[in-house]
Amino acid sequence: VNAKKITGPSSGFPELLPELRRVEQQWLDTIRQSFEAYGFASIETAAVEEVATITAKGEDVDKEIYGLRRLREAAQDMQPSSLGLHFDLTVPLARYVSQHYNELNFPFKRYQIQKVWRGERPQEGRYREFTQCDIDVVDNNELALHFDAEMPRIVLKIFDRLGIDDLVTHINNRKIIQGYYLGLGITEPMPVIRCVDKLDKIGPDGVRQTLQTQLQMSDDIIDKCLQLAAIKTADSSFAAQVEGLGIHNEVLDAGIRELRFVMDSLANLRSGSVLANLAIARGLDYYTGTVFEGKFTTYPEFPTIFAGGRYDNLLGSYFNRKVPGVGISIGLTRMLLKLYKEGRIHPAEQCPTDVLLIHTPESSYAALVARAEALRDNGINVEIYHDPGKKTGQQIQYANRKGIRYALFTNTGSDEIKDLVSGTQLPIDIQAWQPDRTSSYQTRIVPSARQAGGKPAD
Amino acid sequence: VNAKKITGPSSGFPELLPELRRVEQQWLDTIRQSFEAYGFASIETAAVEEVATITAKGEDVDKEIYGLRRLREAAQDMQPSSLGLHFDLTVPLARYVSQHYNELNFPFKRYQIQKVWRGERPQEGRYREFTQCDIDVVDNNELALHFDAEMPRIVLKIFDRLGIDDLVTHINNRKIIQGYYLGLGITEPMPVIRCVDKLDKIGPDGVRQTLQTQLQMSDDIIDKCLQLAAIKTADSSFAAQVEGLGIHNEVLDAGIRELRFVMDSLANLRSGSVLANLAIARGLDYYTGTVFEGKFTTYPEFPTIFAGGRYDNLLGSYFNRKVPGVGISIGLTRMLLKLYKEGRIHPAEQCPTDVLLIHTPESSYAALVARAEALRDNGINVEIYHDPGKKTGQQIQYANRKGIRYALFTNTGSDEIKDLVSGTQLPIDIQAWQPDRTSSYQTRIVPSARQAGGKPAD
Repeated sequence: VNAKKITGPSSGFPELLPELRRVEQQWLDTIRQSFEAYGFASIETAAVEEVATITAKGEDVDKEIYGLRRLREAAQDMQPSSLGLHFDLTVPLARYVSQHYNELNFPFKRYQIQKVWRGERPQEGRYREFTQCDIDVVDNNELALHFDAEMPRIVLKIFDRLGIDDLVTHINNRKIIQGYYLGLGITEPMPVIRCVDKLDKIGPDGVRQTLQTQLQMSDDIIDKCLQLAAIKTADSSFAAQVEGLGIHNEVLDAGIRELRFVMDSLANLRSGSVLANLAIARGLDYYTGTVFEGKFTTYPEFPTIFAGGRYDNLLGSYFNRKVPGVGISIGLTRMLLKLYKEGRIHPAEQCPTDVLLIHTPESSYAALVARAEALRDNGINVEIYHDPGKKTGQQIQYANRKGIRYALFTNTGSDEIKDLVSGTQLPIDIQAWQPDRTSSYQTRIVPSARQAGGKPAD
Repeated sequence: VNAKKITGPSSGFPELLPELRRVEQQWLDTIRQSFEAYGFASIETAAVEEVATITAKGEDVDKEIYGLRRLREAAQDMQPSSLGLHFDLTVPLARYVSQHYNELNFPFKRYQIQKVWRGERPQEGRYREFTQCDIDVVDNNELALHFDAEMPRIVLKIFDRLGIDDLVTHINNRKIIQGYYLGLGITEPMPVIRCVDKLDKIGPDGVRQTLQTQLQMSDDIIDKCLQLAAIKTADSSFAAQVEGLGIHNEVLDAGIRELRFVMDSLANLRSGSVLANLAIARGLDYYTGTVFEGKFTTYPEFPTIFAGGRYDNLLGSYFNRKVPGVGISIGLTRMLLKLYKEGRIHPAEQCPTDVLLIHTPESSYAALVARAEALRDNGINVEIYHDPGKKTGQQIQYANRKGIRYALFTNTGSDEIKDLVSGTQLPIDIQAWQPDRTSSYQTRIVPSARQAGGKPAD
């Protein structure tokens, strides 16, 4: 494992070598298939948006947006950029839906797998260009709570299929926090929410101090806030614990009802994979109900891997309709590079080639091409070695270096295929032969338990 | 067909509705599978490069590059951008190979499917953000001519699989033009090459006038140049025609030998799909041998759909080695939107869903989820209708609107599936059932002949 290999044209713009890119492609395929298994349709929005559109939500990220100007124009005047690169895929979705409202059918279930850009200070887990995988559902007027419950199911299916066993989905509902705070007499809950959301980072004492000094809250009220935030249950039993705190409020009740529905719907998932965690709030102002946050249990200090929630009013801010939504965004680049750095991904192949056709001075190039095309027609990936002047041993060496498993010899009377893993060489029927793709050359993902046991498995 | 639907956040940044995006995804899958069938490995380079890197080749496109600055920094000072968005994928490949030279195995065969950005004036076929699909092979010191011959074979396979029958690959070799011009006594061939390359646009009289007025060339020499440019053959017979012009030069001979090898290697391809066209030069300075250009025969005025060639010295300009390359780039966005506008693409589905599970007040949601997961485990894409309050007819209407072919009824004693195309409803075994995906709902591509016959087929 060589973390140095993750370099790019400029700091914060990671690039992968072909063998790790193959893993990324397999992951992207799995994610796409999983999104489609639940009926989500793909869209892509332009990377370039009007700055006015993407700064409209007033988040911290505004300052980190990359503005764009053509070099030709920038050389002529010093106007500010009116175009910028998108920093997420939720705001562009809102703009897309408002623009194409009459051409879409609702509920509109879309997935979007694209690069986004943020001019953050590059550090572990934070990049300036990275790939996000988003699913969202938006609907007219009302959006069924079934979709909130479906989101953690979909992401868990993805991680199971990827072989990643140490990601947990923390789930909460903004209405619980807001209703509870309102019931406590806190009339402006948002600043308190943002502070308690940092519990993980600054601890209960840090939260207490901030609430005391910045918001002049009493110790009693702070205690009550911290009691709510301490509730974590693997099922719907959080509800009894909240009710035990003795606060009554209609919004709180609605939140408990919603989170209970979500947790009950997920009761049959793998044990420990979801957690009702009443400390989770997410920083973004636009969430109104369910909120999700996915973290590695093995690397508790590492940033969130996926996150999302319910936003009932975000799209309405782009046009005069009620279009509630719920979604989740997976930080693919961060997840891939972390597991690679930790030695849990062992890429094995530098190319998709199954078979290398050995090319000798006696070979007819046209005959090699015909054999290659016959194999390709059966879905097999084939290269013809390019230089008949090279010895067979050198051609095999090329296959070994790139992780190509099979070599085909065509000038031995019959077509013979050599398995470079087992060393066996046998005649084949070129019309019928299929490669074994479950070979030891395949990329392996090491589960967290083996990893935690000591050095990376080999 | 509604060309209006191709809009985006800003002029020149096209966006697709979900049904056309599905076609684009199918095309991208076909292109990727075809590239991989020939052993090409995927890489992605960062969209963001140092401006100094991407302007180093000194092409016209420089002025159209989008420079980037974080809004925060741009608000503080008026420095020029040191970062920019890539405008092609060849220059980034050169930078990537020079950066990772010691970690790659050669010949390095890579494909790259990514967005690129050019601040051109938006018009038909020209966009500011679009997707390119590139394959290139680069090698140390020498690069086998086999790879030049393989490029048109790969793109033709792609277009055949996409059902596009009216694209022709025009092939030439820069050495033929350069050697012939040198043989004519033209010591600086490049300005002449650039002028003759416009033959298609300005005609022989236009070329003659430009060569006379701007380069002070004699009529005799111009005649000889135009005679070479008029040679177009479907096979290697171009060689005899060139030799018949009576010009002798070593570089010319090498060019004829190379182009003959390429044309002979392609002799078994579909008739009319490749053409030795000695007028083709490509504007870019860095091509040194084979050049390719792909055009629609049905829309002769429409810009080039794919193009490429051999560049023996481009990578060497980034570091002190000889690393020749050859490649081709397909303009996917341009090709897709042109055929859509011409009524030759009929998208049919707004989502990947195969089956909609009908949800009634009597349904158990948990039982629906279990059935949906059983189908998904068999690779079937499934949605559970979200609102049990809606009548069955309304749920079926939702399926029809989105192009979902099947509806599953679970509360009729047994599981029954209704084919919404044929109208038949039958009991099924949920563990064994598979959808018919070759249905009339599928997207159709209309061949050029039917299109040329009159109005779009229906």
